[in-house]
Amino acid sequence: MHMNSSAVATAVRWGALSACWLGALLISVPAGAAETALTPKWEPVAPGVWKATIGSPEDLTLLSAAGQAPQLAALAGMPAAAFPFAAAEIEARPQARRTALRFPLGLDEDIYGLGVDFKSLRRTGSVFQLHVDHWSGRTGRTHAPVPLYISTRGYGVLIDSSRYVNFSVGLGVRLAAKDKPPVVDRTTGGPAWSSLPRSDSVEVSVPAGGVVVYVFAGPTPLDAVRRYNLFCGGGALPPKWGLGFLTRTPIGYSAQEALAEVDEFRQRGIPLDMLGLEPGWHDQAYPCSFEWDQNRFPDPAGFLAGLEKRHVRANLWFNPYISPTAPLYAQLRPYAGSHLVWNGIVPDYSLPQAREIFAGHLLKKIVGVNPAALGGFKIDEVDGGDQWLWPDHASFPSGHDGEQLRQTYGLLLQRTLMEVFRGLNRRTFGQVRGTNAGASPFPFVIYNDNYDFNEYITAVANTSFAGVLWSPEVRGGTGEDMLRRVQAVCFSPLALFNGWATNTKLWTHADVAGQIRDVIMLRQRLLPYWYTTFAQYHYQGTPVIRAMPLIAGFKAPAANPEPGKLDATANPYAIGKVVEAKDQYLVGDVLLVAPIAPGVASRKVTLPPGRWYDFYTGKPAGENETIDVSPPLSQIPLFVKDGGLIPLTNERQWAPGREEAVPLEVRHYGESPGELSLYDDDGETFDYERGECSWTKLRAAKDATGAWQGEVTAEKDARPWRYSAVTWRFMTTPEASR
Amino acid sequence: MHMNSSAVATAVRWGALSACWLGALLISVPAGAAETALTPKWEPVAPGVWKATIGSPEDLTLLSAAGQAPQLAALAGMPAAAFPFAAAEIEARPQARRTALRFPLGLDEDIYGLGVDFKSLRRTGSVFQLHVDHWSGRTGRTHAPVPLYISTRGYGVLIDSSRYVNFSVGLGVRLAAKDKPPVVDRTTGGPAWSSLPRSDSVEVSVPAGGVVVYVFAGPTPLDAVRRYNLFCGGGALPPKWGLGFLTRTPIGYSAQEALAEVDEFRQRGIPLDMLGLEPGWHDQAYPCSFEWDQNRFPDPAGFLAGLEKRHVRANLWFNPYISPTAPLYAQLRPYAGSHLVWNGIVPDYSLPQAREIFAGHLLKKIVGVNPAALGGFKIDEVDGGDQWLWPDHASFPSGHDGEQLRQTYGLLLQRTLMEVFRGLNRRTFGQVRGTNAGASPFPFVIYNDNYDFNEYITAVANTSFAGVLWSPEVRGGTGEDMLRRVQAVCFSPLALFNGWATNTKLWTHADVAGQIRDVIMLRQRLLPYWYTTFAQYHYQGTPVIRAMPLIAGFKAPAANPEPGKLDATANPYAIGKVVEAKDQYLVGDVLLVAPIAPGVASRKVTLPPGRWYDFYTGKPAGENETIDVSPPLSQIPLFVKDGGLIPLTNERQWAPGREEAVPLEVRHYGESPGELSLYDDDGETFDYERGECSWTKLRAAKDATGAWQGEVTAEKDARPWRYSAVTWRFMTTPEASR
Repeated sequence: MHMNSSAVATAVRWGALSACWLGALLISVPAGAAETALTPKWEPVAPGVWKATIGSPEDLTLLSAAGQAPQLAALAGMPAAAFPFAAAEIEARPQARRTALRFPLGLDEDIYGLGVDFKSLRRTGSVFQLHVDHWSGRTGRTHAPVPLYISTRGYGVLIDSSRYVNFSVGLGVRLAAKDKPPVVDRTTGGPAWSSLPRSDSVEVSVPAGGVVVYVFAGPTPLDAVRRYNLFCGGGALPPKWGLGFLTRTPIGYSAQEALAEVDEFRQRGIPLDMLGLEPGWHDQAYPCSFEWDQNRFPDPAGFLAGLEKRHVRANLWFNPYISPTAPLYAQLRPYAGSHLVWNGIVPDYSLPQAREIFAGHLLKKIVGVNPAALGGFKIDEVDGGDQWLWPDHASFPSGHDGEQLRQTYGLLLQRTLMEVFRGLNRRTFGQVRGTNAGASPFPFVIYNDNYDFNEYITAVANTSFAGVLWSPEVRGGTGEDMLRRVQAVCFSPLALFNGWATNTKLWTHADVAGQIRDVIMLRQRLLPYWYTTFAQYHYQGTPVIRAMPLIAGFKAPAANPEPGKLDATANPYAIGKVVEAKDQYLVGDVLLVAPIAPGVASRKVTLPPGRWYDFYTGKPAGENETIDVSPPLSQIPLFVKDGGLIPLTNERQWAPGREEAVPLEVRHYGESPGELSLYDDDGETFDYERGECSWTKLRAAKDATGAWQGEVTAEKDARPWRYSAVTWRFMTTPEASR
Repeated sequence: MHMNSSAVATAVRWGALSACWLGALLISVPAGAAETALTPKWEPVAPGVWKATIGSPEDLTLLSAAGQAPQLAALAGMPAAAFPFAAAEIEARPQARRTALRFPLGLDEDIYGLGVDFKSLRRTGSVFQLHVDHWSGRTGRTHAPVPLYISTRGYGVLIDSSRYVNFSVGLGVRLAAKDKPPVVDRTTGGPAWSSLPRSDSVEVSVPAGGVVVYVFAGPTPLDAVRRYNLFCGGGALPPKWGLGFLTRTPIGYSAQEALAEVDEFRQRGIPLDMLGLEPGWHDQAYPCSFEWDQNRFPDPAGFLAGLEKRHVRANLWFNPYISPTAPLYAQLRPYAGSHLVWNGIVPDYSLPQAREIFAGHLLKKIVGVNPAALGGFKIDEVDGGDQWLWPDHASFPSGHDGEQLRQTYGLLLQRTLMEVFRGLNRRTFGQVRGTNAGASPFPFVIYNDNYDFNEYITAVANTSFAGVLWSPEVRGGTGEDMLRRVQAVCFSPLALFNGWATNTKLWTHADVAGQIRDVIMLRQRLLPYWYTTFAQYHYQGTPVIRAMPLIAGFKAPAANPEPGKLDATANPYAIGKVVEAKDQYLVGDVLLVAPIAPGVASRKVTLPPGRWYDFYTGKPAGENETIDVSPPLSQIPLFVKDGGLIPLTNERQWAPGREEAVPLEVRHYGESPGELSLYDDDGETFDYERGECSWTKLRAAKDATGAWQGEVTAEKDARPWRYSAVTWRFMTTPEASR
């Protein structure tokens, strides 16, 4: 009867069963099975970027919602690259309720991206739906469910749909697959049996009659990300003040209290560039009136002048739903969707008319009052959860439905706000709680109400596959908890403290107040490094944050799953654990950040290939290995690559103004010569688009005597840059190396 | 500028804003907004049951997959009832990607049902999608996502679709709603501000071009459930042995070891009616060969004879995917879907041909070998998760897609298996891991791999709104943990121990072994009560388990949410807590079960209206109040309603055979007279459908002297029943009452 009942593991590949298959094929298949697989046609749309239009795509896509033009010149500067697939192996299947796609996936290949997940980086071996939502532990539901995947083979695929897109990544073995996983006896096969047999495909389904897909060539995974970001319009370039520190005042603060808060930062010597506020316009239910509250802010212009005088920009918190008592209400009512959010109407911002009305109000009544002091906004509640927002079947005047608006609402708002500031030739930098593909150029940083330290860090790393930015907000806490969180947020794109719902201040806990100040000051001093890193994002598409799988040659501590152990209640499928380097990342080219969680005394750091050095001491830390670090409470572990140059300003309380020349300290690490193209411009306007910017070459090398020398060379025809006297510090001295 | 900025809470209803609305209406609405709302037409299809066909529904619905005929005669016996809605208030909106529905919902109304959730009973104020899946904490994803809701106003609504159906229950306020929630200042409105403003609707969307909807009248919520169950074919009536105890042998057990396990139960005096097995057919990858393993079970017929001799039925564990080496493979290959599950093909059981092939094999090769000993099956892996099963875009020979098969696979399997046994005129009782609407008549009990005690109990309660059964499996544990779990499972529809992946036996922990035996014996003795309760389910549609909201006049400890407190990280929306009586339920008409979790010394029990008495002592426990109980470890808290009659057998090791007369003990509780219609039949076959059954009236009342007397009256023309000598025990003696 039964052929494989021995106690020895029996693993046969499907090839061995071909007689069986052959027999099966002789029996005719029932009629209903007919389904046509089409081979999409790929047309080049930019250097190393191809597009396929499958079926009849809907008009509102993610890239159309973002509405930005590709950086074709920058793309043209990238190396030539061939289409990364055998095109015949990509299949599209139009179905009654959806469009299904299949992309080949090598058995040695891993997939990253597909949205900013908070738990893991690697997507191979998972199944999920991408859906704009507040992260709550559910894969695929996130603030940035960007349907872009990046392969370890060095290419990217973007499903440009405003629908909830489904992915099976290396799971769901097809009956028609050529190479099937081994058939292993579950009872006797031991660890060879896998509950998750690996498939040869990434399968995608889109609940629409068609879809637009883009493929981005490499040759490296980082190149694929670069092409994606450049195709979306290049990465955001914040104003310099946006890279300073932001604090948000507690609920109910008045203008007077807010200014006093700024003064206290100054008195305590804590750098501050942005003041977060809720102008009292949540008063109506929670959707906004978009009018300053008369009692708390009786004189908005005077208040903004007070901020300007203090070198601080206001960041105003809103949600984009319009309170029934808002002056804007009557104008936007004709563009309202079928459902309310907290009693506010939901304007159909996919209609240009609605965006114009909203932008017009912000421009005339809010930003225009004092553009030098009103720096930006925090766009709240554009993510979810389902219980706050409209249902998928909500209808909107444009004819788009609730699902499409849900996937694009954050994009549409960011676009609207960016255009307000662009109209004033001022850059902005703010926060947003929901975004999607196409967002690379938007100067908004994601945040949320989640508060798990480790998830925060994984999210920071995952942004590098998604063309977005993420900031792990600090919202209070005690002693060590607050210090560790401030350290982490200072090494994220937007350094901030959200004091809205706490009485705690950054200086409340005397035992850590000095260390908190120190790391904020370090963040402030690192402005030149951050600014150049953002310039790389903008001009070259290279992400600000780089997850470890994007680093050439990086090997995670254990690339394969650990075998799982059967347990009736804890692990009935005997699933193994995947070890990932998801708790560390690079900022820019040479700075490795390994945040330490509150309550943790030591951690492991996996160093990429090449020698790495301790940021603080310049001492060698290791090379292509996993090390243990137990830094003092005052330090977040930071490592610099051999030859790395880290430019810093002097200690300052706010970012340099547009005409201000600032002294520069350049630190060199390691034993190899170093080189850095330092970017600069006025730090505030879009004049850089007219060439008002400079790349200055910094070089460190040993001279004939073996002594380190630093060299500064402005590029030919470059505009003057704004850093003045340069001091060189060669960190890895013979003493440090010992 | 701002009109409502005082520090006093400002709550205005939308009516006050009518001028504003009027102004808005004068502006013409953009063109895209046009969407037609249809009013469905309702036709009566059974007494108190109406059907509406909206658009063009798909052929495969949940009820069509279940394929059972309504119990029209029983429905005709229910009280007449009017259509429970103002029909004009129900709206259907055909959209490009879905069909949307709106049902009115009173502000005083609460909704239950919508699938077996494990966290809460009440659905009002939630948004989710119903999806067959393994429960993992995500509302809507469950083993029984039955799209039926039951209103506290006493009616039910079933969305009969094999798609993932979306619900917004009392959330998602429509712009067009007549009565909108108050507009409250978030900052100053205090607890009057709600993050979840209540809507006047249940909104539904189905991703299909049409849908069939049923409405079930009451007048009570329990009546609506009854009508639903009867419309689905009436509740399952298990064989008597199915209400005994089941134990599942450890992985790799041989025939010899399995029989020895039965003998050990007998030696230890622990009742046992069913032996769960994996016949070694998981050998091929995990999908089954559907052949006994030659090494472990060399003589299946001999093994089954051994079980029969021991009065025990085999329950065979399988998953319905066909291993490539199975003899069935070639026959079912033409009916395979496009994707594999663990290397096995996925037969399209929505095709009768595929069901017939599978049923034929089970009948000829498995059940037919010894129908007296082969009692049933455990149908595994028909729920999820997404990572194990096929993608939604999988295609099947019938033309149905993966989503439709996912929603109906468990139903189709249960139907197939029930028909195998029905063909032999033998009842079966087994387990299933995924089911859906229409399952009421299927003799299968849901189980899963979840192991949270409190969630288990809530699930048991929730089955009462869904026409399904659920058993909180015991899988091992230590001492008190195992005892408390065995107590709970003994007061669920299927009492079992799953020893597959543990070395622990029920008697491993000497400190609790006796108490474990005792509660299993109590379960065994309560067979007449369980059997009559199941007969009520079958003949009258009354669920076996009754969640507290189904009990007339029951008031949960606090019906309204507790106000929430704003916390920046733990509760940024200041959401209140809902208090529900979700940790207790009734079994049948008079027995209140309040399981105690391991490690808990006391708990609260909320007693419904009327006096309640302790099951063990007959002492008064309270009335329409919440009491604290601290029972000994040996007891699960049980309470009997005033006048309740509880029939028990003598102590026995297995259920009575079809010709066996068993002595009966009838316990009376409380101070009121009691009455019970005790059901009986042969306990094994479907002969009851030909009238081979009896309802016997048991009555307890005080005679003229004030002494309690019991009376037994067989119904006119009733077949003889199988309980012999009746002993009456009046539990609430004057001593007990003191």
